[in-house]
Amino acid sequence: MTPTEIPSLQDITAAHERIAPYIHRTPVLTSGSINNLAGCSIYFKCENLQKIGAFKIRGATNAVLSLSPEDTSNGVATHSSGNHAQAVALAARNKGLSSFVVMPENSAKVKVEAVKGYGAEITFCKNDIDSRQETLDKVISRTGAKFIHPYNDVEVIAGQATAAMELLEDVAELDIILAPIGGGGLLSGTSLSTHYISPSTTIIGSEPKEVDDAFRSLAAGSIQNNETTDTIADGLKTNLGDITFGIIRNHVSQIITVSEDEIVDAMRKIWERMKIIIEPSSAVPFAAILREPHTFKGKRVGLIVTGGNIELDKLPFSLNL
Amino acid sequence: MTPTEIPSLQDITAAHERIAPYIHRTPVLTSGSINNLAGCSIYFKCENLQKIGAFKIRGATNAVLSLSPEDTSNGVATHSSGNHAQAVALAARNKGLSSFVVMPENSAKVKVEAVKGYGAEITFCKNDIDSRQETLDKVISRTGAKFIHPYNDVEVIAGQATAAMELLEDVAELDIILAPIGGGGLLSGTSLSTHYISPSTTIIGSEPKEVDDAFRSLAAGSIQNNETTDTIADGLKTNLGDITFGIIRNHVSQIITVSEDEIVDAMRKIWERMKIIIEPSSAVPFAAILREPHTFKGKRVGLIVTGGNIELDKLPFSLNL
Repeated sequence: MTPTEIPSLQDITAAHERIAPYIHRTPVLTSGSINNLAGCSIYFKCENLQKIGAFKIRGATNAVLSLSPEDTSNGVATHSSGNHAQAVALAARNKGLSSFVVMPENSAKVKVEAVKGYGAEITFCKNDIDSRQETLDKVISRTGAKFIHPYNDVEVIAGQATAAMELLEDVAELDIILAPIGGGGLLSGTSLSTHYISPSTTIIGSEPKEVDDAFRSLAAGSIQNNETTDTIADGLKTNLGDITFGIIRNHVSQIITVSEDEIVDAMRKIWERMKIIIEPSSAVPFAAILREPHTFKGKRVGLIVTGGNIELDKLPFSLNL
Repeated sequence: MTPTEIPSLQDITAAHERIAPYIHRTPVLTSGSINNLAGCSIYFKCENLQKIGAFKIRGATNAVLSLSPEDTSNGVATHSSGNHAQAVALAARNKGLSSFVVMPENSAKVKVEAVKGYGAEITFCKNDIDSRQETLDKVISRTGAKFIHPYNDVEVIAGQATAAMELLEDVAELDIILAPIGGGGLLSGTSLSTHYISPSTTIIGSEPKEVDDAFRSLAAGSIQNNETTDTIADGLKTNLGDITFGIIRNHVSQIITVSEDEIVDAMRKIWERMKIIIEPSSAVPFAAILREPHTFKGKRVGLIVTGGNIELDKLPFSLNL
């Protein structure tokens, strides 16, 4: 693929073959109790049970494996406070490459430790976008490492697209597929896989009201930014990129926004009834179903559970006591 | 089967066919991070992701479905503070039967609500074995319901045996299978399946030190009781029955006991690294591996994760901060 070409079905299939040795084929779980509550049949594609605890390993692995030996002779680099940092670090280690990760100085300790554990060299920065970018630029100019963008990259998108591809292989005749949207790598990949494999399936995005840039971007027809990012769903604070926005405009019919309380409530229900640990970002699509049940009533709904990385010492459930 | 006949492979296979429409085929999960920590390859059979959040639905469903219409004309009854209560209630509802459950008055509210939700009539008793039995006797004499024993019942054992049967179908050449032991229904069933299907596989039990009656029973050659039951592993407080003890004596080579701190530490590691919610009882086998790593080093180990029913408002992780 050229750097801006939209991944084809063949590209996504090739990505899947490329990354298969390095990822789990995650299970699709169902729950009678959750279905009763929601009024529809939900098929949870559990990427929280993926390696590194999140779908991000798919895109990062595909991006790293797609690069030429010349491109990666000095390793790979990225900036991320979260799952993409671990994903790039592990993907690089799997290929025997060095990795350089810029992380905000207030990143969760458990995530910093995980990134270190995969052998990455970490450089801390201040917790704002400018500092991240400046620090990354310095790291790259010092090391010559190749930048792996967290989402606005066609190889990353093709990798993220493989989760929905597996879901569509495992579950027939889905009426709707739901995913959360942050930078849009997962939702754009999901919408491409679904468009190619099951074109009659509707794609719906979901997003915290507090960071509803994607909702506003679709309405405005151009990329909108978030002024503030006061959401518990720390994976969804990012704005769209031009590649992800272009794909999402073409294939996503609707974005449902939900409140912080709705996210915590949905997360708790999934922990309690499904016995899986999901991070707040992953609860957003289920919160969307509970918020707009008429949209989903009686339907077969695929839902991509994006990750399970949350600090057990800082659980938000006391809000709900 | 007669009431004391040991289940054969044919009995277990028949049980599996009988209960299949009412249970999930639970996934077998693995984690590179957990394997690195443990020094062996562990295949987690995730019965925490089973219906009712525990393996108990297997045995209760097989027992209920094995009874004749005459036996169940007045419904079924049991006593349990935990997962067996939910299992009997749901198994009865699935067959259109009434169910009567005796529960200690201090049972977790979430479990009481779940049992009610499955349509059972609950009678509360004091939190001791005598009160349980007396209250159950009264309920049975009033209703004529058929008692489903939590573990000392060959149909229950045959049902619990199906978890290991599935695990052995999914994963070849296991050196060891590990399960926790309370009343012994799961471990006896597991040991029978393994004996029939993979006789070279070693069966190891695991138990909290605080309730090490099974460890002492194997050593003494007769059923021993617990004087106190001060363990966080609330599913493992029960003593063995004569049927389960007989099977375990013949097939289980070793029982490893672990401390309360080891249970909490093992539970936290599984939550953090595997992103699944397991109850304390389910952490006991992994705690056993971490305690005696030399026994498992380099081996392929199957581990039955028994359940995921835990109150999110009462998590024990602050012990480990």
